[in-house]
Amino acid sequence: MAEGGARPAAPSGLQALGALCRPQRVAVVGGSADPGKIAGRPVRFLHRGGFAGASYLVNPNLPEVAGFTSVGSVAALPEVPDAAFVALGTAGAIAAVRELAALGTAAAVVLAAGFTESGAEGAKRQAELLAAAGPMRLLGPNTLGLVNLSDGVYLTASDALETPGISRGAVGVAAQSGGIMASLLSRAGGRGIGFSTLLATGNEADLELADCVEYLTEDDNTAVIALYIEALRSPRRFVEVARRAVAAGKAVLAYKVGRSEAGALAASSHTGALAGSDRAYDALFAEAGVERLTRFTDLLELPAALAAGKRSAGRRVGVLTTTGGAATVIADACGALGLVLPGLGAATAAALGELVPGGDVDASHNPIDLTLAGTRSEVMAPVIELLAACDDFDALVVVLGSSAVARPRLVADPLIACAARPGAKPLLAYVSPHLPEVLERLNRAGVPAFEDPESCAAALALLAATSPPAPFSAPPAAAPHAAAATIGDEVEAKELLARHGIPSPRRAVAAEATEAARLAAHLTPPFALKALVRGLAHKSDVGGVALGVALADVPAVGAALLARVGAALGAPPAALLVEEMAHGEELLLGMVRDPGLGALIVLGAGGVAAELVDDTVLRLAPVDRRGAEEMIASLRLAPLLQGARGREPVDLEALAEAVVSFSALVEELGETLAELEVNPLVVGAAGEGVLALDAVVGWSEAMRPQGSPS
Amino acid sequence: MAEGGARPAAPSGLQALGALCRPQRVAVVGGSADPGKIAGRPVRFLHRGGFAGASYLVNPNLPEVAGFTSVGSVAALPEVPDAAFVALGTAGAIAAVRELAALGTAAAVVLAAGFTESGAEGAKRQAELLAAAGPMRLLGPNTLGLVNLSDGVYLTASDALETPGISRGAVGVAAQSGGIMASLLSRAGGRGIGFSTLLATGNEADLELADCVEYLTEDDNTAVIALYIEALRSPRRFVEVARRAVAAGKAVLAYKVGRSEAGALAASSHTGALAGSDRAYDALFAEAGVERLTRFTDLLELPAALAAGKRSAGRRVGVLTTTGGAATVIADACGALGLVLPGLGAATAAALGELVPGGDVDASHNPIDLTLAGTRSEVMAPVIELLAACDDFDALVVVLGSSAVARPRLVADPLIACAARPGAKPLLAYVSPHLPEVLERLNRAGVPAFEDPESCAAALALLAATSPPAPFSAPPAAAPHAAAATIGDEVEAKELLARHGIPSPRRAVAAEATEAARLAAHLTPPFALKALVRGLAHKSDVGGVALGVALADVPAVGAALLARVGAALGAPPAALLVEEMAHGEELLLGMVRDPGLGALIVLGAGGVAAELVDDTVLRLAPVDRRGAEEMIASLRLAPLLQGARGREPVDLEALAEAVVSFSALVEELGETLAELEVNPLVVGAAGEGVLALDAVVGWSEAMRPQGSPS
Repeated sequence: MAEGGARPAAPSGLQALGALCRPQRVAVVGGSADPGKIAGRPVRFLHRGGFAGASYLVNPNLPEVAGFTSVGSVAALPEVPDAAFVALGTAGAIAAVRELAALGTAAAVVLAAGFTESGAEGAKRQAELLAAAGPMRLLGPNTLGLVNLSDGVYLTASDALETPGISRGAVGVAAQSGGIMASLLSRAGGRGIGFSTLLATGNEADLELADCVEYLTEDDNTAVIALYIEALRSPRRFVEVARRAVAAGKAVLAYKVGRSEAGALAASSHTGALAGSDRAYDALFAEAGVERLTRFTDLLELPAALAAGKRSAGRRVGVLTTTGGAATVIADACGALGLVLPGLGAATAAALGELVPGGDVDASHNPIDLTLAGTRSEVMAPVIELLAACDDFDALVVVLGSSAVARPRLVADPLIACAARPGAKPLLAYVSPHLPEVLERLNRAGVPAFEDPESCAAALALLAATSPPAPFSAPPAAAPHAAAATIGDEVEAKELLARHGIPSPRRAVAAEATEAARLAAHLTPPFALKALVRGLAHKSDVGGVALGVALADVPAVGAALLARVGAALGAPPAALLVEEMAHGEELLLGMVRDPGLGALIVLGAGGVAAELVDDTVLRLAPVDRRGAEEMIASLRLAPLLQGARGREPVDLEALAEAVVSFSALVEELGETLAELEVNPLVVGAAGEGVLALDAVVGWSEAMRPQGSPS
Repeated sequence: MAEGGARPAAPSGLQALGALCRPQRVAVVGGSADPGKIAGRPVRFLHRGGFAGASYLVNPNLPEVAGFTSVGSVAALPEVPDAAFVALGTAGAIAAVRELAALGTAAAVVLAAGFTESGAEGAKRQAELLAAAGPMRLLGPNTLGLVNLSDGVYLTASDALETPGISRGAVGVAAQSGGIMASLLSRAGGRGIGFSTLLATGNEADLELADCVEYLTEDDNTAVIALYIEALRSPRRFVEVARRAVAAGKAVLAYKVGRSEAGALAASSHTGALAGSDRAYDALFAEAGVERLTRFTDLLELPAALAAGKRSAGRRVGVLTTTGGAATVIADACGALGLVLPGLGAATAAALGELVPGGDVDASHNPIDLTLAGTRSEVMAPVIELLAACDDFDALVVVLGSSAVARPRLVADPLIACAARPGAKPLLAYVSPHLPEVLERLNRAGVPAFEDPESCAAALALLAATSPPAPFSAPPAAAPHAAAATIGDEVEAKELLARHGIPSPRRAVAAEATEAARLAAHLTPPFALKALVRGLAHKSDVGGVALGVALADVPAVGAALLARVGAALGAPPAALLVEEMAHGEELLLGMVRDPGLGALIVLGAGGVAAELVDDTVLRLAPVDRRGAEEMIASLRLAPLLQGARGREPVDLEALAEAVVSFSALVEELGETLAELEVNPLVVGAAGEGVLALDAVVGWSEAMRPQGSPS
């Protein structure tokens, strides 16, 4: 087709993913007829799911492959494909993408690696690829593609599709790694868990995770969205689309790597030590209504449990067993997650007594242990029916013990029968011995089945969770990671805060101690004396702070302090700060800049407690008044601030306003600000306001704002 | 044989378990010829492992079963068995045990249930059973028995033995549940993990978990001991035997249920809320050198990883992969446990560059991602050899990606070859797709293989752990759980403490406020005023505390306080306490009585911080001076106490002495004491000593010591 014709407008992400997942006409460019080669895999897989649209194999050797029409080049395609899978190497992929885009193809998967993931040269190539795509949308590069099990469209180069047992289900997957997509697909096959569509986003040169969430939200075959995340490219957009997914009734669950990068921000800011990047993601997921999973295998099992479709009305769990130990382990894991195991109600207990001969089951106890009686199917089946139907529990777990090795249907059959009834409460199975085929059968029949008691309990907790996502704050501008910081002195930080409505105690600054004493005569003793040193975050580490100093002692204490700090640092401090003392509840108010997420506001326990108590809350900036109030309320020390234990309540009004002012200051300064922290921020009793007792400001190198003290 | 003959001395636990695990002559009493019946299982299983000793089946019907000599009664046995398996019901079991004991049998397994686990009647029957046994030792009742895989002795009624793939190995198991023993045995078969001996202790009427640990310590076929614990019957003895096992070079790992019983002690004591029963077990395991596992499946996989025999010299982990996502997940899980992933050294990087054609592997990076090059065995095999032999890492994890679905030997074969070399560092495998047969093959060949990244990282951390067990304190007398407490008033508690060397601030007590002011004139203001009320643990909740009161204000403030408390409680307080104020570091010093473990001493952050900061340490009482110092040093606030951040160090000497005195007081009062807590205990600067600012004492009902105030 002719180049230079009128180009169509770029499809939206939703349209592009729609074209890739449900295409009419597919071209596999560079696909090989050799199924053993990687470029042969998309050719091998495309028709395996029953894809019935037009299929073109673009390869100059014109190989003959059943189901495909071979053409020698993209230009030779007899019609415009809506979707393409580009199986060529790095250079060939760029050329093919240019040709496909010129043709008017809506979207293409690009398999090749060698782009941003391989350094600066690769990043250039990726820019070239993106330019070549023009209005055509890309999934990748460096991706294994996608698998739409609902419609049988397999645009993938992953051998995981060879795993037996892969099936349709209601869980949609978006993964920032093709290998992880493959792992989930393969493991699901072995466990009888089904998927709707799986998407691997690769380098996200164009389409990214947020687009996939948007697509899966619109996909009627997807009820639950499972995400593997390494780093979000558009955090604010992710929050928006995830919230829309949740609002549409689709649970979103994420496994995010980066737990061990906590501390990455800690280099120069002590707030960073309390609030690393990983906690920033925790805050983001909370705001988005996304359930964060802590174990990789949960990314397979928990979405499947939700996709079985039932929800618990509450946290009451019944456990039915024939073996004590396994039930104890389940009960313990449930208790650890705040689930409760109430005893049976009188009616249920009476009915149970009639079903179990000899009456030697303790019907007051939960777990309900049928012991030997449970090995008879004429007992087990009606007991499962009874407990599944009773109102004493919101969910039922049935344990399969060692007797299931010899009799795998004894418990599984009645469980599957009950689970199929409309309106039944969630029924789950815990399989104690090694019975993979029973596990698979139960999952396939809609009975979430587990061999890990902690995962079983986590699923029960999730089925009972009803809390709506946290309120949504307005989108901020994302800020890149600031360069190494220049630490200002304390007075500089306090003046900055004062200009934005956060006051400090009255103070005087002098070059030496006698002058300091003269100035201090106008202030109210006792005093805090501090060394003023630029670039020093922890004055007290070098003996640079003296508290409760009487006016008469200022000259001697001040001189000693200056000498001590001078000796410790090898140079005399710039000046001595004399400040009035203030008392109240001590908090920490700070900013951390996450390399991926931009600025976040931190509020927490302050003073020396800040380093002992891990009581901080994070929120993406900007924070409005309502957001500030929610931050305060979510602290563990909130009851104390509000006046628990007979204490006077603090000035919560002023505290909330200080958080909002601080956030506005952070927004205003943008990326010139590398760090800013008030610690302690003293909050007085109601009406007394707040005072910044100490503060640290750090500026990005070469980004110091004009007019700031130097 | 004649009754009433001279009875032999009871065998030791070690002898008894030796007789059960390696018998010469076994009698299965009440065994059935029907393999489908439970009583038929021990008959079915006894010879399956090749047991070649004498086998008797005691059954009045004299059934014919291959391998057994049938006799009609115990008395008819032609020789004295050293071990018996009693497969009869409750009543029959007691009679059989009596007969076996009379014969001189060393030890018997009792399968029957219906003893202590089923209430008071059952407890009576268990006492009867124990009396019937006389000097004969019992495993059980209510146990599935034992499986000695090393010697092929299966004295068990568990169908788990039907699982294919069960094999010998170096992990010994003792479980307080037959079902859990069965679950581990069955799952191990499916994963290629082997065991030496598995013991299920059941009701522990006689032989208990500590005996099993002792036996497995002596067993040359056991290198690692894995324990499933519900409640220890002899905690102090357990600590002793576990320490001996660890000293003998045998790692001891335990999965203990009871995490959700954490609030069980919280009812009457507020120390309980900070330091529940489960944390008491944490303290006990730390003292015993036992590694506590947090997930049930770890009880299978982590002992197996240790039993593979290799240990890491440090925490440096290399990760080799062909797929980025799975390696990222492993790296992240490793980092979260404090393991490090250093880059390759120059020599290794150069060697790697020669092995990988094209040189497009980034040798500075770890995980080492071979990408497509790794799918060629002529590359993968020598790279594994190179990394297994290099000095850059202390352990190596190799990821099997989706390509292993089609080519399961590509990575597994060279990995197995390398692992077999003597002196090699630990080599582990992470299997990303669903490949159970590959997982099994690797484990069987001594390459610990995982499908759960968090377990893989936990195994690596365990292989690198070198910390010796915590110092051992002297055995205390175990105390039963105290009954509901009567709370004494504050003065009663403080007098008790003073008599044992823990002073309080100077004080006066008066019936009303004017009298209080008169007495306070002899003390130094400002004062703390408090309502004295028996049975009230939290005075401040009802407005019963006023701080910083001047002498002149005592009448008004005191009267208001008494009125407030009187109104809140519906009755006037007994008296008003006026006390001098004191300042310093605020700690909590308390006692909790664990239903299973007896008294434990608690030390932690005190004052209002106690409820915010989870900074407490627990130790079995009594605590000696060295133990007290270790408790102090293990607090997170220890650096502050020792003078970090320019603070003055506190009187650590006096604090340690206070802990010892407190512990001695707890020992002396024994179980009359239901609760005792000092909070805050104020510690002054060096030489200034400690002061108990507030204290609560609770007495067990009807166990109040003579002479204590009433």
